[in-house]
Amino acid sequence: MKTSPPALQARVNGARLWQSLMDLARIGATPKGGVCRLALTALDGEGRDLFVRWAREAGCSVRIDAIGNIFARRAGRNDALPPVMTGSHIDTQPTGGKFDGNYGVLAGLEVVRSLNDAGIETEAPIEVAVWTNEEGSRFVPVMMGSGVFAGAFTLEHALAQRDGQGTRVAEALAAIGYAGEATPTPAVGAYFEAHIEQGPVLEANGCVIGVVQGALGQRWYDVTVQGMEAHAGPTPMDLRRDALLAASSLVEAVNRIALAHAPHARGTVGVLEVFPSSRNVIPGSVRMTVDLRAADDAVLLQMDAALRAACERIEATRRTPMAVEQVVYFPPQPFTPELVEGVRADAAALGYSAMDVVSGAGHDAVYLARLAPTAMVFVPCADGISHNEIEDAEPEHLEAGCNVLLHAMLRSAGVAA
Amino acid sequence: MKTSPPALQARVNGARLWQSLMDLARIGATPKGGVCRLALTALDGEGRDLFVRWAREAGCSVRIDAIGNIFARRAGRNDALPPVMTGSHIDTQPTGGKFDGNYGVLAGLEVVRSLNDAGIETEAPIEVAVWTNEEGSRFVPVMMGSGVFAGAFTLEHALAQRDGQGTRVAEALAAIGYAGEATPTPAVGAYFEAHIEQGPVLEANGCVIGVVQGALGQRWYDVTVQGMEAHAGPTPMDLRRDALLAASSLVEAVNRIALAHAPHARGTVGVLEVFPSSRNVIPGSVRMTVDLRAADDAVLLQMDAALRAACERIEATRRTPMAVEQVVYFPPQPFTPELVEGVRADAAALGYSAMDVVSGAGHDAVYLARLAPTAMVFVPCADGISHNEIEDAEPEHLEAGCNVLLHAMLRSAGVAA
Repeated sequence: MKTSPPALQARVNGARLWQSLMDLARIGATPKGGVCRLALTALDGEGRDLFVRWAREAGCSVRIDAIGNIFARRAGRNDALPPVMTGSHIDTQPTGGKFDGNYGVLAGLEVVRSLNDAGIETEAPIEVAVWTNEEGSRFVPVMMGSGVFAGAFTLEHALAQRDGQGTRVAEALAAIGYAGEATPTPAVGAYFEAHIEQGPVLEANGCVIGVVQGALGQRWYDVTVQGMEAHAGPTPMDLRRDALLAASSLVEAVNRIALAHAPHARGTVGVLEVFPSSRNVIPGSVRMTVDLRAADDAVLLQMDAALRAACERIEATRRTPMAVEQVVYFPPQPFTPELVEGVRADAAALGYSAMDVVSGAGHDAVYLARLAPTAMVFVPCADGISHNEIEDAEPEHLEAGCNVLLHAMLRSAGVAA
Repeated sequence: MKTSPPALQARVNGARLWQSLMDLARIGATPKGGVCRLALTALDGEGRDLFVRWAREAGCSVRIDAIGNIFARRAGRNDALPPVMTGSHIDTQPTGGKFDGNYGVLAGLEVVRSLNDAGIETEAPIEVAVWTNEEGSRFVPVMMGSGVFAGAFTLEHALAQRDGQGTRVAEALAAIGYAGEATPTPAVGAYFEAHIEQGPVLEANGCVIGVVQGALGQRWYDVTVQGMEAHAGPTPMDLRRDALLAASSLVEAVNRIALAHAPHARGTVGVLEVFPSSRNVIPGSVRMTVDLRAADDAVLLQMDAALRAACERIEATRRTPMAVEQVVYFPPQPFTPELVEGVRADAAALGYSAMDVVSGAGHDAVYLARLAPTAMVFVPCADGISHNEIEDAEPEHLEAGCNVLLHAMLRSAGVAA
């Protein structure tokens, strides 16, 4: 369907979007300028209540499902069509920022408000979703609400999870009044999600809009290295079995494995623990993690094989047995080419600098893409920093991303004549 | 002076030496077969009392100095000559073994007992020293008693040190009755110390006697690496400043620096701590230690320069500022060539397989070498393991080392006609 001339001229209200972000950020605000609003806490309940009030004020009907996902719906001319959906999450990390997730939710609300302002009726209904517990800081698994919605795991599994204090998800939902009864059919016409990039690529390239091709697949590993603890003084170099020396070779190998599949592959060792950790004792063992990511599953498998080959080579050279255990696997999730192309076209039509990017992190959109045509819109964040109280973004970038979201959603929803 | 034929035929009593080691090891014995007898504890006092009783039973006079060093003296024919001394320590690590230090003390006692059995009178007096707090597990500095004796630091400094509970060395000495009044003139004719190797070289080479050339010099460093903490997913490899990747390059550089000065140089990273230590976060900083050792001070300086050059190279490549701070320096301490040659000759005359080694760890002999001609005799320990409750040694190796000690001391002390 084509958008009509008034729709083509529609623009979001950047100042209103910014003000809503700042208003929501007061709930759980930290002294350092961030937000601490863990999933399903009383503060999360306050944030949800505010969103629901705003959505109702914008004319939406609101439903809550059994895992606490919120769906704010603006009716379409043909309300039987599957909704064109957008959204994200408003739970935060313990020392989180104002924009991660919140931007996607409030950009969706701003789309609804702007459609109201412009008097535009869409063919298909528009829905703004607030997905429960995307961060996973209080309850695992991460991306819980969208995961249940997409059938990645069951509702019962999610409801039974407990936080560090033993509180179950089901109890926490009830306590804040978000144990809903809606059972939304997962019929979604299209899903869009606006998000801060959480990385440095847009900023480094001076671009305002990231056209997200898809999300990287991930393989996470636990690796243990067994050496021989010995005195640093009396033990000659050639008689050592130094677990840290072997582990260091693996850190460099992981880096090389990712570089071999530039630009989208990633390889990271985030945890490396040395035992016994004494200044003059040759390390006897090391426990470390490896995180490999790639846009293509075949590449990710090649990286897996290269990791295992590196371990075999190192353990033979250093005489340090190494055990590799994969603990997490997410397949790569490409987004829908037609929708991605639409985002690129909208950015160009709106005059924003744009570039193709990948999502290195997980987002609710990754699960939604299992159900429906999906695309994401990234905007820069300052220094690429996220999951941090100093997380920041430019109002004009947020406005630009929201305008792209508006027009991408209009293209999918269609505009009534 | 030459040793007379009866002296040439003198041999120690290996069974008696072993029995004394086992008897002393009962004081502070641990369930796993080791010993916990920290310096200047009541158990240390019990061990000292046992040694003093044995020494007096062997006809020695016993003096205690103000830092608690014990000197058991067997008179010489010319008792005005500086004594030919041997000794070591009987304090242990918290999870220490039966042989570290204790062997050197009881080998000295066995030399006295064997001279008594053989009716051999030496020209110079023989002294067996028990040095206070060699391990440094309870009080620092390590090698405290021999350090005071050799003037490496003052008696007042040592007496004022406190343990983790705030107890001063002076108080702990008084509590066990070893705050002595003797002020021994540090005139020592020669010093010998028998010790388990605490490393794997003798065992790997199938040798019974290590002819110790000297002790390695040591330079210890604290190194900090500053990177940029960032999400492992959204941050491409080329925009990272990974502190652990830089640190891993330094671990490998330290290994290469030591290998470049084989066989005696050592390079060890024993501590490496990663921050924030999260599986999917690129490490923002690393704190690590470096321990460099070499037999020659010029080599040790070259290694220092190579370490600093490696840091500069790595920080330029990885954009991770690195700070290097030297925190400990011990100069290399060569032992006295004539005495070392005597140890080698005695081992050969006694029919023991022997090889030249260096001492990679510190020993009381390293301080004594500042005062007097000094040599050490090493014997193998099982798997090179020490500072561990499973520390072990073969009775026949301990006997062999003690026989070499006996003859080396006789050569220096001279035998009365």
